[in-house]
This record gives sequence, C-alpha cells and structure tokens, in this order.
Amino acid sequence: MSWAASYFTKQINLVSIVGGDFPKGEMDGLKKIGVDLEGLEIKDTGKTFFWAGRYHMNMISRDTLATDLNVLDDFNPVLPKTYKSSEFVMLGNLTPDLQEQVLDQLDGTQSFVALDTMNFWMDLAMDKLLEVIERVDVLMINDEEARQLSGEYALVHAAEKILTMGPKYLIIKKGEHGALLFDKENIFFAPGLPLAEVKDPTGAGDTFAGGFMGYLTKTGDISFENMKRAVIYGSAMASFCVEEFSLDGLKKLDTDIIESRVKEFAELVRFSL
Amino acid sequence: MSWAASYFTKQINLVSIVGGDFPKGEMDGLKKIGVDLEGLEIKDTGKTFFWAGRYHMNMISRDTLATDLNVLDDFNPVLPKTYKSSEFVMLGNLTPDLQEQVLDQLDGTQSFVALDTMNFWMDLAMDKLLEVIERVDVLMINDEEARQLSGEYALVHAAEKILTMGPKYLIIKKGEHGALLFDKENIFFAPGLPLAEVKDPTGAGDTFAGGFMGYLTKTGDISFENMKRAVIYGSAMASFCVEEFSLDGLKKLDTDIIESRVKEFAELVRFSL
Repeated sequence: MSWAASYFTKQINLVSIVGGDFPKGEMDGLKKIGVDLEGLEIKDTGKTFFWAGRYHMNMISRDTLATDLNVLDDFNPVLPKTYKSSEFVMLGNLTPDLQEQVLDQLDGTQSFVALDTMNFWMDLAMDKLLEVIERVDVLMINDEEARQLSGEYALVHAAEKILTMGPKYLIIKKGEHGALLFDKENIFFAPGLPLAEVKDPTGAGDTFAGGFMGYLTKTGDISFENMKRAVIYGSAMASFCVEEFSLDGLKKLDTDIIESRVKEFAELVRFSL
Repeated sequence: MSWAASYFTKQINLVSIVGGDFPKGEMDGLKKIGVDLEGLEIKDTGKTFFWAGRYHMNMISRDTLATDLNVLDDFNPVLPKTYKSSEFVMLGNLTPDLQEQVLDQLDGTQSFVALDTMNFWMDLAMDKLLEVIERVDVLMINDEEARQLSGEYALVHAAEKILTMGPKYLIIKKGEHGALLFDKENIFFAPGLPLAEVKDPTGAGDTFAGGFMGYLTKTGDISFENMKRAVIYGSAMASFCVEEFSLDGLKKLDTDIIESRVKEFAELVRFSL
C-alpha cells in the first residue's frame, strides 16, 4: 500500500507491527521513498505475520497453506501525534476492532477515510464491522463480499443498500474484470487490463488501495469525477503488482511508466458514438 | 438474433427449421419487422427444437433439464437464391457441419461473416470447427471457450493464437463483466452494464450477435473503430434481452430507447485524464 502510494505522495504515515525477523532492508526502502515509520512497532522477540497459499489457474481462487498471525495477534495500534491529523486515512484489512481503535485516535479533521475488509470479518464480527463501516467515506470490497454484506445479489441493489450504511462511496473490486465505483447517483466501471502474464496476485487489493488513496492525496479532490481517475490509477498500480512476484512489480516504477499504463486503460474502453 | 437485428436493418434473411408446433403468431411477428422467412423450413410433422434449464443465482451456470433436438436433428439448410449474396452473414451456434454447409452455398461476395460456437463443438467436432473458423471474419465465444480453443489461459495470449486461425477479429464474451474485441493490433473492452434485475439470460449471446451484426449492416463499416460501436450496440441489445423473460425485452424497443441505453454504456466507462 505504501509502495503504491509513494508514487503520488511523499507524506505517508505507516501504522503496523512487525517482528524481529522483518528484513531491515525493506524498512530502509520504505524510509527512502518517504514513508514515516514512527507508527511501525517492531517487536524484536516476535515474528512477523506470515501467510502462504497456492493460487489456482484463474488467479482468484486460492488454497491457504499457512496463516500465522504472530505479532499481529496482540497488535495494539498507537498513532504518533503527528499522524492524528492525517487528511487521508486508509484502514487496511484487519479486525474491525483494530480499525475502530485507529479511527478513535484520529482528531476528526480528516477529509477522507477509506476502509478495506473481507468476508472473514463479515462472518466473524459483523456487528463491529457495521459500526466501522458507518464511520468511513468509502468501502472497498469484492463482488461476493458486497453480496454478503447487503444480502442482495444484483450489484446495483447491493450498492444501494451499502450506501445507506454510512459510506458515501463504494468500490466493488472484480479482479481481472475490473472495478465498480458507486455513489448514490452515479456508477463508474473501471476495466480490468487484460495482462499477458499474472505472476502473483497477492497484495493486488492493497496496491489498488495505495494507488487510489495516493492519487486522491496528490490531487486533494474527492469529487466523483476525480474518484473515477483514482480508481483507474489504483487499477493501474494493481496491474503492475500482479505482473511480478511480491513487491518486484512496484519497486521499479516511475511517473512515465504509470502514466503510460493509465493511458492503456483509457484506450481500452475508448469509443465514440 | 433477428429481433435484435431488426432495429438496425430491414433486410434480414433467416435460415432455420421449425416444427408444426411453432406458433404462427411468432412467424407473423418476424414478417412484420422485415424478416424474410423464405429460408425457414417448416416441417409440419416434426416438433421444434426444445431446451429447458434452471439457472443458478449467478445467471451464468445452469443445469440443463431437457434438450430435444427434434427437427434440428436432420436439418439440411438450403439457402434461397436471393440469400446467397447477403453482405453480412451470421452463422449461429449449431454443428460446424451445418455452418459449413451454409458457407458453401454463399456466392463469395460477402463483406463479413461471423461465427458463434461453443465448447460442446470443441469437444465433439474440433477438426471441422477449425475448418469453419478459418473461413470467417469474426469469431464470438466466451472466455472459457477462448481458453479451450487456444490452450492459453491469459486471454491476451488466447486471442493472439486464435487470430492466427483465420478470423481477423475475435470477440470474447464475459457475461455480466462485458466483452473484449481483439484484432491483431488492438483490444477494446466493452463494459457489462450493471442491471438491477436479470430475469432470463437465455438468448443473450444470440441477441448480442443480432445487435452487433445489425449495427454493422446498418453502417456498412467494418473498421475496428466501428466494430467497437457494434460491440456496444450488441451489448445494449443483450442487456434488454436478459431483463425480461424470453423475447419480451426485445419486442418493445425503439431507436430512442436503444440510443439511450447505448449512452449509459458510454457514460459508465467515461473518465478524463
């Protein structure tokens, strides 16, 4: 998320926790691109969160081979003072309790708060999740999660219902098929870019969120028209993410490469009547 | 297919076969909208092709409850003389043998021949199907079929391979997610319109083909730019099809309704950089 956002803004306040095993080089890399690590707790005696899985051919379904919460298990996020007035806030996909803890520490001057979550928290902690959803500006989930959260199958109806739960905007991610952006009056369909090779979809959602929030931060404009562009930038960043393993696709970019990828998205759906 | 095309052209030459049970009112309806029925064989002693199925919630998967070929079983399409010089030809999804029989009767002056097919014929009659594919200008299949036909998972590679098999254009249909149009140099992504209600997806593919071919016939322009518009018109017609049961969604349209639906597609993907 930070790597993706770093191409749009140099003021990134990271809040997270890692163990003593976390590679120092990665932290130096983050510092270099302007990420403030004051909010990163390093628990020397613990191990970093670990997930391993095997993706199916379609690169959507996957079998989880291992999930070790490790230091995440008793994470207690504390926001440094300078973070509390962050204008744009992205709440990553963790327990709704932790997301709420972060929300409670903000000073209330935020322009825009975004929330990522997943079916897992809907199954396990729906009440708390609904409390958090009520407090954010945009919710990002996938199509199945939108159906589960709303109890509606048609995404148009699902969106209508979710937009009564608090958020002004809803982003429904559909993997290779693209993403939908909704507010109460408008729908925008961001295409998925057909890629010749997908090596590793891990982190595509976070990369999307980083690109989306980075672009909003850079432009400071939260109109629907600009949010459409932010969804395209987020999609472009995600397309770089999945083309390479791990963070490899995200570390070697520059503005020209990103702009030219974004133009591919524009060209892909361009037609005149 | 004829109903969808009828909003764009009044010169539709239908080739098919029905039994004595086929409702006369439907034939009158087709005549009224300008469909030439000289190529429609009516086998009074036989019964019309019949299919019944149950769709799953996602409106893509379905269980077939009954398939009775009936008169289709020994269909032997004979083109009336006036049909043989048809400029635009759409070969519907039947056995590759029958499709070839129709191709063989054409006088060779066609501007554009389109082919619909499905996984069933790939499993059963791949060699003959490949012969037919070699002779057409555009192939219309869904994403799974493109993967099966090419042996490539990534649609970009699948398209590359299929475009070496004969067709100049390839349309990959992705149901609610939209459709992709390829030629050797270009890709176009036509969005799926998020619909509040889908009542009956039966015939959506044929309706798409009818709208697509109808629009090409009307405009007489087979450039990639115009073919993009044709894909949008086909998608718009398919969206009307699935909103109602059977042909109900297609019989009550007019140019204004269609144009306004097409504008919804344009608005759905519109963004500026």
